[in-house]
Amino acid sequence: MKTLLLVVLVLIANMTFLAQSKSDAKAAADIRTVMETQTAAWNRGDIEGFMQGYWKSEQMVFVSGTNVARGWQAALDRYKKSYDTKAKMGTLTFSDLEINVLAKDSAAVLGSWKVTLADGKSSGGKFTLIFRKFKEGWKVVHDHTS
Amino acid sequence: MKTLLLVVLVLIANMTFLAQSKSDAKAAADIRTVMETQTAAWNRGDIEGFMQGYWKSEQMVFVSGTNVARGWQAALDRYKKSYDTKAKMGTLTFSDLEINVLAKDSAAVLGSWKVTLADGKSSGGKFTLIFRKFKEGWKVVHDHTS
Repeated sequence: MKTLLLVVLVLIANMTFLAQSKSDAKAAADIRTVMETQTAAWNRGDIEGFMQGYWKSEQMVFVSGTNVARGWQAALDRYKKSYDTKAKMGTLTFSDLEINVLAKDSAAVLGSWKVTLADGKSSGGKFTLIFRKFKEGWKVVHDHTS
Repeated sequence: MKTLLLVVLVLIANMTFLAQSKSDAKAAADIRTVMETQTAAWNRGDIEGFMQGYWKSEQMVFVSGTNVARGWQAALDRYKKSYDTKAKMGTLTFSDLEINVLAKDSAAVLGSWKVTLADGKSSGGKFTLIFRKFKEGWKVVHDHTS
């Protein structure tokens, strides 16, 4: 009887663990899709589309070097000003993605970004993103780029 | 009867919300204490003490500019090499801390760091930290500094 109870408990623990792994894998896949949608938007010159991956809030945080900027709308306006032609936007790629699912509605992503212009010049660096899951899906709430 | 049920449900929702707020406030206070313990250690020249705030794992991640380094021991060795005298360490302060508790065992912290040397020269910047709660307490698992 004791053995049976133990077997049942181990099975439940395994099922819980598997359910967790499965839900984490689903979260990571969903986040990857958001980021692929972002680069696809950027690469067709669609800044608004790119910005859909970010939380539409005044509280959204962008950290770049020693600068901290806040707010979805402000970020959109800044991007539109800096990238007023598609040529300036170049081709954006994200790589080396490491998605760390922290909870059912939170994840951290470490990755590399690279923008290549038509003349072959490129710039790039690293980012840490914090994603939260909203009813609209996973969105970046905090972006630290360097 | 329906009204009573509604009142009970609202009370339960409020209690859950308050319990959540209380536990988030406790998490934020605990994280703040970890960071104060870190600066206190740094400022008495105790690099090992400073490093207690980090996850003792090969998987701990340090991002600085375009560089990604991994592992607690490697970070300790690097710090010990770069700061072989207390004078080089200067005085470390953390400020502008914004602690965002993501889940009962996860949080993100945005803040500023500054190191001031005896001659008044200083360097500083911004960091995003991801903390996880282990049985040993809250530890930084991911540090993006710029």
